[in-house]
Amino acid sequence: MNQDYIVPDPWSIIEDGYEPDRVKSSESLFSLGNGAMGQRANFEETYSGPTFQGSYIGGVYYPDKTRVGWWKNGYPEYFAKVLNAPNWIGIDIHIDGEPLDLAACSKVENFRRELNMQEGVYYRSFEAELPGGTRIAVKVTRFLSMEIDEVGAIRYAIQPLNRNAAISFEPYLDGGITNEDTNWDDPFWEVTSVESEGARAYIGAHTLKTHFDTCTFMHAVLERDGKAVDGDRQEVRGEKRIGHRYTADAEKGQELVLYKFGGYAADLNHPKGSLRKAADKALDQALSLGFDGLKKAQQDAWARIWEMSDITIEGDVRAQQGIRFNILHLNQTYTGRNSRLNIGPKGFTGEKYGGSTYWDTEAYCIPFYMATKDQQVARQLLKYRYNHLEKAIENAEKLGFSNGAALYPMVTMNGEECHNEWEITFEEIHRNSAIAFAIFNYFRYTGDYSYIPEMGLEVLIGIARFWYQRATFSKAKNKYVILGVTGPNEYENNVNNNWYTNYSARWCIRYAIEQLGKVKDGYPEDYDRVVGLTKLNPQEVSAWKKVADNLYFPYSEEHRVYLQQDGFLDKELITVENLDRKERPINQKWSWDRILRSPYIKQADTLQGFYFFESDFSLDQLERHFDFYEPFTVHESSLSPCVHSIQAARLGRMEQAYTFYLRTSRLDLDDYNKEVHEGLHITSMAGTWMSIVEGFGGMRIVDDKLSFSPRIPKEWKSYSFKINFRHRIIHVTVAPGQTRFELDGKEEMSIRVNGKRVVLTPGQTTTV
Amino acid sequence: MNQDYIVPDPWSIIEDGYEPDRVKSSESLFSLGNGAMGQRANFEETYSGPTFQGSYIGGVYYPDKTRVGWWKNGYPEYFAKVLNAPNWIGIDIHIDGEPLDLAACSKVENFRRELNMQEGVYYRSFEAELPGGTRIAVKVTRFLSMEIDEVGAIRYAIQPLNRNAAISFEPYLDGGITNEDTNWDDPFWEVTSVESEGARAYIGAHTLKTHFDTCTFMHAVLERDGKAVDGDRQEVRGEKRIGHRYTADAEKGQELVLYKFGGYAADLNHPKGSLRKAADKALDQALSLGFDGLKKAQQDAWARIWEMSDITIEGDVRAQQGIRFNILHLNQTYTGRNSRLNIGPKGFTGEKYGGSTYWDTEAYCIPFYMATKDQQVARQLLKYRYNHLEKAIENAEKLGFSNGAALYPMVTMNGEECHNEWEITFEEIHRNSAIAFAIFNYFRYTGDYSYIPEMGLEVLIGIARFWYQRATFSKAKNKYVILGVTGPNEYENNVNNNWYTNYSARWCIRYAIEQLGKVKDGYPEDYDRVVGLTKLNPQEVSAWKKVADNLYFPYSEEHRVYLQQDGFLDKELITVENLDRKERPINQKWSWDRILRSPYIKQADTLQGFYFFESDFSLDQLERHFDFYEPFTVHESSLSPCVHSIQAARLGRMEQAYTFYLRTSRLDLDDYNKEVHEGLHITSMAGTWMSIVEGFGGMRIVDDKLSFSPRIPKEWKSYSFKINFRHRIIHVTVAPGQTRFELDGKEEMSIRVNGKRVVLTPGQTTTV
Repeated sequence: MNQDYIVPDPWSIIEDGYEPDRVKSSESLFSLGNGAMGQRANFEETYSGPTFQGSYIGGVYYPDKTRVGWWKNGYPEYFAKVLNAPNWIGIDIHIDGEPLDLAACSKVENFRRELNMQEGVYYRSFEAELPGGTRIAVKVTRFLSMEIDEVGAIRYAIQPLNRNAAISFEPYLDGGITNEDTNWDDPFWEVTSVESEGARAYIGAHTLKTHFDTCTFMHAVLERDGKAVDGDRQEVRGEKRIGHRYTADAEKGQELVLYKFGGYAADLNHPKGSLRKAADKALDQALSLGFDGLKKAQQDAWARIWEMSDITIEGDVRAQQGIRFNILHLNQTYTGRNSRLNIGPKGFTGEKYGGSTYWDTEAYCIPFYMATKDQQVARQLLKYRYNHLEKAIENAEKLGFSNGAALYPMVTMNGEECHNEWEITFEEIHRNSAIAFAIFNYFRYTGDYSYIPEMGLEVLIGIARFWYQRATFSKAKNKYVILGVTGPNEYENNVNNNWYTNYSARWCIRYAIEQLGKVKDGYPEDYDRVVGLTKLNPQEVSAWKKVADNLYFPYSEEHRVYLQQDGFLDKELITVENLDRKERPINQKWSWDRILRSPYIKQADTLQGFYFFESDFSLDQLERHFDFYEPFTVHESSLSPCVHSIQAARLGRMEQAYTFYLRTSRLDLDDYNKEVHEGLHITSMAGTWMSIVEGFGGMRIVDDKLSFSPRIPKEWKSYSFKINFRHRIIHVTVAPGQTRFELDGKEEMSIRVNGKRVVLTPGQTTTV
Repeated sequence: MNQDYIVPDPWSIIEDGYEPDRVKSSESLFSLGNGAMGQRANFEETYSGPTFQGSYIGGVYYPDKTRVGWWKNGYPEYFAKVLNAPNWIGIDIHIDGEPLDLAACSKVENFRRELNMQEGVYYRSFEAELPGGTRIAVKVTRFLSMEIDEVGAIRYAIQPLNRNAAISFEPYLDGGITNEDTNWDDPFWEVTSVESEGARAYIGAHTLKTHFDTCTFMHAVLERDGKAVDGDRQEVRGEKRIGHRYTADAEKGQELVLYKFGGYAADLNHPKGSLRKAADKALDQALSLGFDGLKKAQQDAWARIWEMSDITIEGDVRAQQGIRFNILHLNQTYTGRNSRLNIGPKGFTGEKYGGSTYWDTEAYCIPFYMATKDQQVARQLLKYRYNHLEKAIENAEKLGFSNGAALYPMVTMNGEECHNEWEITFEEIHRNSAIAFAIFNYFRYTGDYSYIPEMGLEVLIGIARFWYQRATFSKAKNKYVILGVTGPNEYENNVNNNWYTNYSARWCIRYAIEQLGKVKDGYPEDYDRVVGLTKLNPQEVSAWKKVADNLYFPYSEEHRVYLQQDGFLDKELITVENLDRKERPINQKWSWDRILRSPYIKQADTLQGFYFFESDFSLDQLERHFDFYEPFTVHESSLSPCVHSIQAARLGRMEQAYTFYLRTSRLDLDDYNKEVHEGLHITSMAGTWMSIVEGFGGMRIVDDKLSFSPRIPKEWKSYSFKINFRHRIIHVTVAPGQTRFELDGKEEMSIRVNGKRVVLTPGQTTTV
């Protein structure tokens, strides 16, 4: 833990007190998002202290020219950067001509931030004494509307406390923004128009190279005592900036309130050339609801989200706050409305890592969205990859593959690879398997087979072709081998026969063959279409099978475990426990070669295989592998603790499971990795959800049926979660010694609890 | 072969005809150097066509901030860039007010360059018609003095051919130069003074960050009919530039000649603050000799160089030209006068690769300098590494080693590592062994043991400590292993138990132990000093021995060969012959992962071990390993063909040896790799020399005696070379069926020829 200033609360993230050192950290933690856009919790008013400004539009990126020390053939030309977009939240405040800037105030008192997770609304309030002696109270309410996802709303209220004051509010738009993460300090945006009409203003800007057109807009109203203040609206215009200055007098104790509606219209959703019209439409809609109406709609939308996705934890407020914080951000980041969007590792909370899509989506995030949303949401994520299939085939071609073999990118925005480390970009190819696995998982979860004949089969064929071509025959082993890869454990590079990669490759080929059969039988028209399109022939499929059936898996007879890779046992096998504490985290203390030759594991690798393919192995095997690999795991990835938490729970090691759980659930709130100021770890938040549902709840799908083996950490009184399984909603509440099930709908449903069949009746509580 | 415009000639490099496309290539090929400085063959007069300007001062570099895509702990802060220094050769010419610029002339005829290798002098002549119709003949002579190594001289003669003309010469100095190779477009130089006095001018400039102070200077004289032309000298001054304009009339057919002396005084050789004085002293010295006297001294100096280092080849003018070109450049690059200098991969011919020192020096270059120079020259190269020992220890500490373990840098200027690819910087650690091997080789060759007690032993201890710590114990193998390395074949990264690395590591430890014993017995004072300094104790040495004696070497029983690394036999072993021609060179056609998992070898790796440690193996073993590895070798390093040529000759495969020889010897002249415009491959030139002496000549040192097994390619009538072996000079001439030996000095000397003892008598020719 690196910080503990967040006040424990079941439903809110709360900060009390103004500490300049915490501003960047809080800007991340109090970030807002509505799936279409998002923003860090920057102050509306001028702030001259350290800050990291960020406002992001989903799907809008800049292809920043690749920067490497040593170029390698096949590197992509660019890295897709998450873009800081024009600022629409800004409101410059002057009190009797003095600017309001918290960093310059004589006193700041009663500073408080609250992100009310139940409502999806962010509140900030403080009392400040300006250098000239005027004391004011400020109350700000802000949210990004879930209802109208191009719009956000701000209520900015100021009350002079010790004297009458002339207060000027200057809501503005600013296109003169920059990125922190930039390779060459290129300008990313070009402002094309700065317009103002009545209470509204617009900045037209497009991204350079990618030519995303956007219109950033605002509409502001100043009120006193609930009534619009008449008077001057003064336009303040810069080259890339437009503001409207409203000035009004407030008596001591009287409150002036500025309502500002703003946001973005982008050509992802509207024809180019009609963005201003779209902006006006969104503003009209927002204004017709008014701030309060829009806020009410926001509360309702979040109530609906929580209705399905909430997890309650009784008896442990920090754990409760942690899990809700994770669920909030997953919902702020991705709503499934737009199949061109995905779940970036930092969501809308920072720029780091660029891109929007990693294997995290398929490996960690999909289960959360499947279980807590309509199946359409997960389907959008699968469709995203289907839409990128052609690019994945091109990507494989660049690396020497042919005949429709597909290699999905490590990092992408539009389907093109944009990562540039050879050991990752070219070698961390297991990402392909996660995409096939997600297809399997989606069907297993939702029961919706239609995705496979319609789209998935083509993806599966491309992936099977890749693995078939990527495996080579070793005469020495008389087996097919997969050489030169990086597994999920990125602390090994360019290894041979990474067990996880090989195992998942075999699974992909076999699963593709199985689906070919199923589609042929059940959807002959789709089958013919896909076979025609992909020019697949039976000889090819037999060749795949031959490779799959003769793939090599490194195994230790002595330890009776599959080896992470060839040669793993040649390492100095000193467990993490016996490693000097001072040497950790090794990724900050050791040079890369030392990390690579060590046995230390960044995140689940062989155990990731045991997670995905748990049913292929006995509990005994799981235990043996867990006991072999966990002691070497340093968990220096945010994605590491969740898998270990789930497996520890499965093995009945609740204390260990709970420790792992806490680490993942409050990773950002407590800033374990000293990097929360850069943004949040969005994708690992889905792992936290899995730790509860699949870990403590022991939820699995066995023979097409839901199965649970619930356990509870001794620290908790009870916990509960809901699951949408094939359109049936089950509410599970676990307390020590008993689990309660409630089923929505009309039909009975049979599940398994601790291996025994249990029949749930709708409207009736079943306690086991 | 990519070009063949160089006219074959035994003693000269000649280009006939002006081709703008060849200018950059010729700028490399006609480069001059004198060990202290060097320059590309840029034109003196203005040239608006494509050119790569380069003038370099030995030892003066700029630490360019590292540029990588993804930072790894332990990466150096900077990469030492070879610096383009202020230009002193420039002479702007105007004919009746028209500028002379070959790219802008109406006609250029009889353009000819000649680098007379025998004299060390570069000639250029042409006839040009200016746009205004004036025709002139120009003859330029230029050299960098071996006698006064801070000075170069230019004779620039112009004769109007079709009319009288007023000709103005403006010799100048220019500090406003830039580098082609720069990471961030930082300025590398700051000009501190621009001065002019009489016929002299000076530019004071220092490098930023490294603060090397330099004074670039010139002194010019204009002559007509052998007499100084009276008249105006007009100063032309810019912020970073100073010129003197001399204008004179020439009648049709009359020649005007400008003599320009110029060069650099640097604080590597003089106290800061006295550089202008040093510049004047160098100029006074040069002027006292005059251009002709300085040129005569140049011819004499080169006659002395060739006397010892020439290799003659009868019957194959291209081979003759090739080897002399190589010998010329080795002598232009390094003279052994200054122990702070070394042999950069591009010498003074370009910027690429930066740094000055790679393992090339010890692995490839030292034999040439030992055999053709006084032993002091090779000793300087060894001393260079001794001087960097402390930095090598620091470098190892950065990577987690301790107790005085030393890891010499992959690339350096001042002893600090400056390379930044983890797979090279951190893992290509075999470079350490080459440094120990050079110590062994130096003693074996020169008989001078004194280096070891004085300096070498400390280096050997640091290296032995490194290998001892770097090896780890594998319980599985019950042996020590060396994990995660890159061998000489850089087409494999992060492999385990690279045989060459392991073998050389064992050799280093054993050699260090052996020398500890020898120094203890023979130089007890040095021994005590070194043991005190290094805090070496007997337990430590036993621990080294234990590792050396139990080191693991991958071996194939089936093929009866040592394996390049663990798992080599798992690859698809398709020989280069069976690889589609279109796929080559693989480093331009394949992505890095594909190269890595292929069996293809960039340059000798296991065979490098058989080259260094040939006497450890039988001819039969050599043949087996050569037959196993050569077919997978793509020779995509300039350092590759020479080792294979030597081994092919050793195996009596003269045709193959000759093919490899040609490839190395004319690599740059014929531009095999399409990159000669970037500069020459200096270090591989020493490999060419080895191909003849050790390859065809079969020279070895066996039991402290010289041994030869001479062979001759069928294309040649004869070839000859000289060897300085332990202060005895032997001249060897090989013709088909007979070899002639001549010995200088007074004493008899016994050698071996084809395994038989032969006694050479001074002054007497011995034919075998």
